[in-house]
Amino acid sequence: MARLFHLPLDPFCRRVRLALGEYGAQADLIEERPWEQREGFLAMNRSGLLPVFVDDDKTVAAGIEAVSEYVDETRGGPDNSLLGKSPAERAETRRLIAWFDVKFHHEVSAPVLGEKIVRRHLPKEAGGGAPNMNRVRSGLAHIRAHMEYIGELAESRNWLGGDDITLADLAAAAHLSSLDYLGDVPWRESPAAKSWYQRIKSRPAFRPLLVDKIRGMPPPRTYTDLDF
Amino acid sequence: MARLFHLPLDPFCRRVRLALGEYGAQADLIEERPWEQREGFLAMNRSGLLPVFVDDDKTVAAGIEAVSEYVDETRGGPDNSLLGKSPAERAETRRLIAWFDVKFHHEVSAPVLGEKIVRRHLPKEAGGGAPNMNRVRSGLAHIRAHMEYIGELAESRNWLGGDDITLADLAAAAHLSSLDYLGDVPWRESPAAKSWYQRIKSRPAFRPLLVDKIRGMPPPRTYTDLDF
Repeated sequence: MARLFHLPLDPFCRRVRLALGEYGAQADLIEERPWEQREGFLAMNRSGLLPVFVDDDKTVAAGIEAVSEYVDETRGGPDNSLLGKSPAERAETRRLIAWFDVKFHHEVSAPVLGEKIVRRHLPKEAGGGAPNMNRVRSGLAHIRAHMEYIGELAESRNWLGGDDITLADLAAAAHLSSLDYLGDVPWRESPAAKSWYQRIKSRPAFRPLLVDKIRGMPPPRTYTDLDF
Repeated sequence: MARLFHLPLDPFCRRVRLALGEYGAQADLIEERPWEQREGFLAMNRSGLLPVFVDDDKTVAAGIEAVSEYVDETRGGPDNSLLGKSPAERAETRRLIAWFDVKFHHEVSAPVLGEKIVRRHLPKEAGGGAPNMNRVRSGLAHIRAHMEYIGELAESRNWLGGDDITLADLAAAAHLSSLDYLGDVPWRESPAAKSWYQRIKSRPAFRPLLVDKIRGMPPPRTYTDLDF
C-alpha cells in the first residue's frame, strides 16, 4: 500500500488527501511532525517539509509540488486528471494553486496555523509557547480579500478554475478547511464562496477531513456541518 | 510571437528563458517592474508576480509554476520535456525545483536580490533606499549549505536531478546566476558545484543571460567568463 506522511491540519497534506479521494485511490496515512526533524523522514525529504508520498514500488515524491503532480500522473492519468484537459486549462489550475499555496499560505495559513497549532508543539527553546496574537490577527485580516476573490471566481465559473473541479478547488478548500477547524473562516464575507465550499464539502472525498481530531483542540460544531 | 513578461535578474524569469533556449523556442521579452503594479499587468496576473507568458493564441500562463509547466507541455512535449521521462523522474525534478524556488529563494535569493536590487527601485514610501545589510548577510550565510548540497548532487549524478539535464538544473542555475551577477556566489565552497555550473553556463541557452545589463550596476568580470 502507498503511504502518505502527513499532518492532519496541514493544508498541503489535506490537498493530497482530497485528491486521492477524488481519484478513488488509497494510501496509508502516517502522521509526521516535521518540527521533530526525524532522521528517517529527512532521508526521504531533505527539506523536511510535508507531504511525502511513498508509492507501492518505493518511489518517493517529496514536497507538495512533486506529490501533487505525481499522484495526478499515477492515480489520475490523462483521463482522470484534476489539472484540466488542455495546456491552457492546466495553466489556469496551476496559477490558482500557486495563489493558494504561495500567496494565501504566506498571508493567512502560515501565520494563523503556525501560531495556533505548530507553536503549541514546539519545545520552548525552539519558539514554542503562547501564540503571537499579532500574527494571528494579521492573517485573519488578510483572509477577507481572499474570500472575496474566491467568491468572484465562484460566481463567474462553475468551479474555481473553470467548468470542472480541479486541484485549484482542492487547494483552496484544503487551506480553508484547516482554518475552519479553528473556526477562523469568515463565511459571511461572501455567500458565493460559502456556497462553493458547501458543494466541495459535500463530496465523498471530503469526509475523512471532517473526522480529523486534534487532541485538546476540538473543532467548532459547524466544522462537520454541511449546512454551516 | 509569444511574449514573456520578465525582469532580467529575477531567478524565476531566468529559468523560463533558459528553458525556452533548451527547447529551441522563441519569445519576445518584455521588461515588467512588478512593484509598479501596472494595471494591464495585474489584469494578466492578479497576484502581480512574474513571470507571465502570453502565447501566440493569447493563452496566458501566469506565475512560475504555471509558466514552467505550460512551456514544457507546449514547447517541450513528451519527447523533449525537461521534467524527466517517468513519474519518478518528474517527482525528483519537481522536488528539486521546490528546493530552489522555495527554500533557496526564501533563505538566499529573496533577501539578497530584494535588498540589493528591488529596494533600489522602490519609492521611499514603499521601503526604497539603502539595502538592509543584515538581511543580505543572512542570505549570504545561508548560501554555503546550498553550495554543499549542489556539490553533493553533482558528484553523485550526471545532472542535479539524474542522468539528463532537467528543469531542476535550470532552477538552480537561474538562482545562482542572478546572485553571480552581484558577485555573491562563493564558488570556492564546492568545486563540484562550480564544475556543474561551468557545464550549464557553457550551453547556448545560457548566452542571453550573460549579456543582461542592469543600468548603473555592471556585473563583475567573472560573470560572463566561462572559466571563472
